[in-house]
Amino acid sequence: MKKFNEKEILGLEKSYRIKLINSITGFKSANLIGTSNKEGQSNLAIFSSVTHLGSSPPLVAMFSRPHTVARHTLKNIQETGLYTINHINESMAKKAHLTSARWPIEVSEFGACGLTEDYEESFSAPYVKESLIKLGVELKEIHDLSINQTVLIIGQIVEIICPETSLMTDGFCDLEQCQTLTISSCDSYHKTERLFRLSYAKTNKKLREVPLEGDLEEN
Amino acid sequence: MKKFNEKEILGLEKSYRIKLINSITGFKSANLIGTSNKEGQSNLAIFSSVTHLGSSPPLVAMFSRPHTVARHTLKNIQETGLYTINHINESMAKKAHLTSARWPIEVSEFGACGLTEDYEESFSAPYVKESLIKLGVELKEIHDLSINQTVLIIGQIVEIICPETSLMTDGFCDLEQCQTLTISSCDSYHKTERLFRLSYAKTNKKLREVPLEGDLEEN
Repeated sequence: MKKFNEKEILGLEKSYRIKLINSITGFKSANLIGTSNKEGQSNLAIFSSVTHLGSSPPLVAMFSRPHTVARHTLKNIQETGLYTINHINESMAKKAHLTSARWPIEVSEFGACGLTEDYEESFSAPYVKESLIKLGVELKEIHDLSINQTVLIIGQIVEIICPETSLMTDGFCDLEQCQTLTISSCDSYHKTERLFRLSYAKTNKKLREVPLEGDLEEN
Repeated sequence: MKKFNEKEILGLEKSYRIKLINSITGFKSANLIGTSNKEGQSNLAIFSSVTHLGSSPPLVAMFSRPHTVARHTLKNIQETGLYTINHINESMAKKAHLTSARWPIEVSEFGACGLTEDYEESFSAPYVKESLIKLGVELKEIHDLSINQTVLIIGQIVEIICPETSLMTDGFCDLEQCQTLTISSCDSYHKTERLFRLSYAKTNKKLREVPLEGDLEEN
């Protein structure tokens, strides 16, 4: 086994450290954030930090670096209070990765990267047509994290669009059916293979594998 | 496609909504958090919210619900300022899931779930022997998120332990070699299959797939 101590970690060459630290927290969600500014110009940016924050109310968190390409996303979210979260699948992964280039603010990454803007009547931020799972989100809170000048963005999910067939009877949404990918480090894209769903853990009960469609014994 | 609006989302039956909202933010990291209290009693809890926050300094974020089983973890982190992050792999996934049961505070989930405490001389929080990638973390900040009474825990990675062979020449750590899993919703465990690593995205350059060991052209 290789072991790095604090001094060795801080002494690593910058690009090596970025790739290492981005790997070792585990697999990440793979999403495109769709926004538009007050004038209606669209923007699209890849985020691997989208994280479930709570179900009641349905809240989602993500982290943004204010001084990178993501600043257009943050600025638009602050201006309009709205954004979309769009799952990245295999057929669009390279286009999604390309949104991370430093596109000028007057260029929409939709057109530049070959992805299609899609609008619902009910929501003014742009969705990505190529995604199979899409969320409309309303900004709730922004927290500046002074420790490293990142920003925690918390939003409430106000719209969910997904294939009817991906919804199991107990509410579980089958991401594999929607070809949702996962990311590791800064540049590695992975598909997944389900091992099992497990029963709700109890101290006095043996764990069971449960069917994909839900835990029938529990209901 | 199925579409839920805000009213429909808020009106969903509670357990259905929990499984749905936990699914639709995408795949999550799969980690066990190891802690001990001031008296040295160990605790182990599964977290799927561990997220990369920055590389300089190397920071990691996670969210905790203060009023669930995770409260033992939070309390220990507040008491000692230290915790470990241990990747969940296939051979230990069921034991890892079992840590989410409501074990009494005097019971260590290590023993109750059949996992092995492991200590480094340099660090007083317990590691999980069965994990192949392990991080020693020092608490930096705790933010109470009043919006839903969760807590954001930010720590600095001060120790990294991983197989020598999993480290590529550019710092990328190959999680698949370490059998690290990913989680969807509350109870589904997945292994992964790499599609590709991609070159650093630039507006004036075609994206390339790069070898697992790193982008040789860029160096």
